[in-house]
Amino acid sequence: MAEYRLFGMGESGNAYKAALMLNLCGLDWEPVFVDFFNGEGRTDKFRDDVNELGEIPVLDHAGRKLSQSGVILHYLAEQTGKFGAADPDEAREIWRWILFDNHKFTSHLATLRFMFGLQKTGETPVTEFLRGRTMGAFGLVEKHLDGRNFIVGNRATIADISMVGYLYFPEETGIDRAAFPNINAWTARVAALPGWAHPYDLMRRGFPGA
Amino acid sequence: MAEYRLFGMGESGNAYKAALMLNLCGLDWEPVFVDFFNGEGRTDKFRDDVNELGEIPVLDHAGRKLSQSGVILHYLAEQTGKFGAADPDEAREIWRWILFDNHKFTSHLATLRFMFGLQKTGETPVTEFLRGRTMGAFGLVEKHLDGRNFIVGNRATIADISMVGYLYFPEETGIDRAAFPNINAWTARVAALPGWAHPYDLMRRGFPGA
Repeated sequence: MAEYRLFGMGESGNAYKAALMLNLCGLDWEPVFVDFFNGEGRTDKFRDDVNELGEIPVLDHAGRKLSQSGVILHYLAEQTGKFGAADPDEAREIWRWILFDNHKFTSHLATLRFMFGLQKTGETPVTEFLRGRTMGAFGLVEKHLDGRNFIVGNRATIADISMVGYLYFPEETGIDRAAFPNINAWTARVAALPGWAHPYDLMRRGFPGA
Repeated sequence: MAEYRLFGMGESGNAYKAALMLNLCGLDWEPVFVDFFNGEGRTDKFRDDVNELGEIPVLDHAGRKLSQSGVILHYLAEQTGKFGAADPDEAREIWRWILFDNHKFTSHLATLRFMFGLQKTGETPVTEFLRGRTMGAFGLVEKHLDGRNFIVGNRATIADISMVGYLYFPEETGIDRAAFPNINAWTARVAALPGWAHPYDLMRRGFPGA
């Protein structure tokens, strides 16, 4: 058994954040497929044994089961000394962006892509609402990246690894990504890091028919 | 001028998280009103001087301007030694719940309450969507609080202070709060802490006509 085990699936950008970090750090890890789309996260077994909140990812390491990608990223940065903060001020800055990601960036984009790109609901008031919120967050990140190579400091950190979580998926979201050149240059920069891999190459996909 | 200054307004539950912590810790602080509903957060002046992301709350202390309530709560716990974690495992557990709060609990509830309770949009597909998500998160917290007095450990921590952020507001959300007795007992427990005050008593309100 690998030293690190990650409960997730290919379509989960939140699981990808952890999987990408494990891969970029060159750790000995293996994915554990969770059949999330068929309700495995809602089963008593999963809630009792893996995560009471029914969510993925969950990292299993040294007798600990950790959930929330932001917690897992910080844990792995502590374990490896890689992609973490240089000092307490930078640590707060990294947390600021990871919270922004969870609150404003990933959250709306993930649900939009699930509905519009995977479930193929077509345009609805909810997809319009989610796209509006996502575009607002994209605009803030686009501006922040003006003259910067990475989100915090001048090197890749777990803030970047968190925020790119949903940016490599091919499914349609109705967002014109060409309108965000700074974001595109940045995602390419992260994708050039040694150990980078696409989410669908790191974890088994679970969406019916995928 | 007070030692701590908090940029916010009464209607912001995210600002309230920070205001409540400042008050519970008995710190020397003062609110700085941001006319958020009239677009002050979107002005160049606010973005340049206070917060590039245009959000409240922002804590001004000792030459630092900190944003994201989760960062502010951790900073104040470090400064005071109050409401923080007892060890690294508990620190991760507190972060887990603060991330869950930002991602699933506060985020949907805050927007639902803004639309349904303040803007009075009436029921729309978006308010139905947000209420469904909020109810899911309420269910998870209700279950977690079974047999527990507080979210992490057996005492109040910044996880509680974050998660109650939007739970004392009077505006209608269309959620039957009586269906969540554990949550109600817990919010009453937090409200009994010395220094607790209602958000509308801590910061000036900004909603037109309020």
